[in-house]
Amino acid sequence: MSLTPNLTELKSVLDVSGSGELTLSEDDLHDFARGAAFLGTGGGGDPYIGRLMAQNAIREFGHPKIIDVNSLDDDATVAFVAMLGAPTVLNEKAASGADIDLAVMRLSERLGRPIDALMPAEIGGVNSTVPIVAAARLGLPLLNADGMGRAFPEIQMVVMNFEGVRATPFVIVDEHLNSVIIETGTAKRAEDFVRSVAINMGLSCIVAGYPMTGAEVKRATVHNTLTEALEIGRAIVAGRRAGDAVGGLVRRLSESSIYGHARILFDGKIVDLRRETTAGFSIGHCKIESLNGTSGAMDVQFQNENLVALENGILRAVVPDLITIVDRETAEPIPTEALRYGQRVKVIAAAAPKLLKTPQALEFIHPRCFGLDFDFTPIEELTT
Amino acid sequence: MSLTPNLTELKSVLDVSGSGELTLSEDDLHDFARGAAFLGTGGGGDPYIGRLMAQNAIREFGHPKIIDVNSLDDDATVAFVAMLGAPTVLNEKAASGADIDLAVMRLSERLGRPIDALMPAEIGGVNSTVPIVAAARLGLPLLNADGMGRAFPEIQMVVMNFEGVRATPFVIVDEHLNSVIIETGTAKRAEDFVRSVAINMGLSCIVAGYPMTGAEVKRATVHNTLTEALEIGRAIVAGRRAGDAVGGLVRRLSESSIYGHARILFDGKIVDLRRETTAGFSIGHCKIESLNGTSGAMDVQFQNENLVALENGILRAVVPDLITIVDRETAEPIPTEALRYGQRVKVIAAAAPKLLKTPQALEFIHPRCFGLDFDFTPIEELTT
Repeated sequence: MSLTPNLTELKSVLDVSGSGELTLSEDDLHDFARGAAFLGTGGGGDPYIGRLMAQNAIREFGHPKIIDVNSLDDDATVAFVAMLGAPTVLNEKAASGADIDLAVMRLSERLGRPIDALMPAEIGGVNSTVPIVAAARLGLPLLNADGMGRAFPEIQMVVMNFEGVRATPFVIVDEHLNSVIIETGTAKRAEDFVRSVAINMGLSCIVAGYPMTGAEVKRATVHNTLTEALEIGRAIVAGRRAGDAVGGLVRRLSESSIYGHARILFDGKIVDLRRETTAGFSIGHCKIESLNGTSGAMDVQFQNENLVALENGILRAVVPDLITIVDRETAEPIPTEALRYGQRVKVIAAAAPKLLKTPQALEFIHPRCFGLDFDFTPIEELTT
Repeated sequence: MSLTPNLTELKSVLDVSGSGELTLSEDDLHDFARGAAFLGTGGGGDPYIGRLMAQNAIREFGHPKIIDVNSLDDDATVAFVAMLGAPTVLNEKAASGADIDLAVMRLSERLGRPIDALMPAEIGGVNSTVPIVAAARLGLPLLNADGMGRAFPEIQMVVMNFEGVRATPFVIVDEHLNSVIIETGTAKRAEDFVRSVAINMGLSCIVAGYPMTGAEVKRATVHNTLTEALEIGRAIVAGRRAGDAVGGLVRRLSESSIYGHARILFDGKIVDLRRETTAGFSIGHCKIESLNGTSGAMDVQFQNENLVALENGILRAVVPDLITIVDRETAEPIPTEALRYGQRVKVIAAAAPKLLKTPQALEFIHPRCFGLDFDFTPIEELTT
């Protein structure tokens, strides 16, 4: 089987570094991982571990080519690659690399053709950097796009599915190189099988799926999210230097062509935290009280990712809009598994990308899909 | 993909019907299913449903060629095909046929070569007839052999595994034609994944696995078990005509070159029965009291199949030896899911095939593998 990419037609049209192509330096990787952690809304695993994995892979295999979606041939074959499991477990078991190679190889074997480019399934923590590792290892270009423009806990919750792209064949590989290939009629059914296998694999696996054409990638993914993560990470750092990290973050989000609206929902300290790994997910909630004790409390509920923020029982933001808890001074995003009692934090909300708010998207990512008894009201329409 | 069998080199050397080839007539199917139900030791699903499935497939597609193991080329490709799940569910959901075709096709695709012949995984209830359906539908020869010489609940519990044949690639398909291909380092690991997927598929699926060469089939399967099942079924019917059905059964088993030893363990009526479908299995036990009330009671425990028979707390037979509960008058084998309070039954034990009693076999089918705190003592060595 050949995994040699068909690069002849591919050219990068993305110019962030000035060299005609996005190359993430080690400094960039810090900013990128930080920005991705924000977009991960608490899920997707520890950005620190993800960054180290990407750094090591780039040192060993060189920088992967990060290419613009529009530079892709319409008939190119693209798939996503990701880690899947509960963040609390993902942090203890980093991918070896051989598992990543095997997942992409098995998918290519099943398709009967080489994979031309890889894509992140989601932007968030470790899953924004695993595709960098994969692209570096396999010498494949990485698309500047992803399937969510944020992170979500289940595999049917991606724009590809909302827009009619098949989830399968879908490959799962564990650290012992056991592999499972799933083919189902619907993405939700694939999720059922994937989750039960993932639980058996100890809740830390590499997955490759949603094989699609270049034409499908162009209409059914959120574009430029790697650049967006890098810029958000840079804005946090610039904001720190200017003495207003959270302000810098919120301003950058408000100017974004993908998110476009953001606000600080709450400022306080964590006074209660419940979190358990159950049914393959890290599920729980976090209660934050205002520092002066006068403004009541905010409750944030999560299933891997933060799902809803209630202030004194009033809805302030709800999925698919983004809710991220950050350090109140440094604006460092805090993954759900790193939340601790007593932390002083701000809760930030940002508007979801448009492709997450279509009627067909809300069939899969409406608050009720997460067991929440709320209608979806975009944060732009909720009172401040 | 081609599923055309390579029949040029295959010739039947099995002469049961006198035509040089085993052909199961409709009458034979009754006897065969009855004998297989005995060898299924309570598991493997309802032989009645299995027989109807085989009968319909033969009417529609013609008789499959049932061939002797020794007529197989050493480099032929063989795989088993079976239903997998809890018997209580298997009885409610019969295979559609398309699921069987897809399972074999997916395995062949993954192997990159056609399957030359099919084999039953086990002899027992529905799983002795599903391969007949598959062979008839696909026009493939069926081997006169199986992986157990009886039935067992898990996929690592086959002679192929004991003798070093890989279980995977292993394919699972459900009634909606969702498919999963599993590749693992060990058969036990495959079982873990298969079971979790099967639970998600509603505990009734078609599986195809243990792809092996003709040479492997010759050394790592129990030979002639289709003939054996037919002969056991015939002996029961002949015994009925002679007024001693159970006697006819036990004599035939004692003369068998595969089993060679059998006895009646107990005679009585069922006075207690507990059975639940849990963790993907039908698990429980059955208490039988002697009819005159003087000889105490026998307790038979099962996990899909009957595992151990205790008479007043004393071990009378234990897995891998065969334990089957039959009607005390007709010697009709009673599957665990058909056991009823008040049934008048005899408990029959037969010695396991030799390949189930090797040290490497007992690593997988020792009583302790089923959670039973007994050493394995062959029935020949237990006092009568």
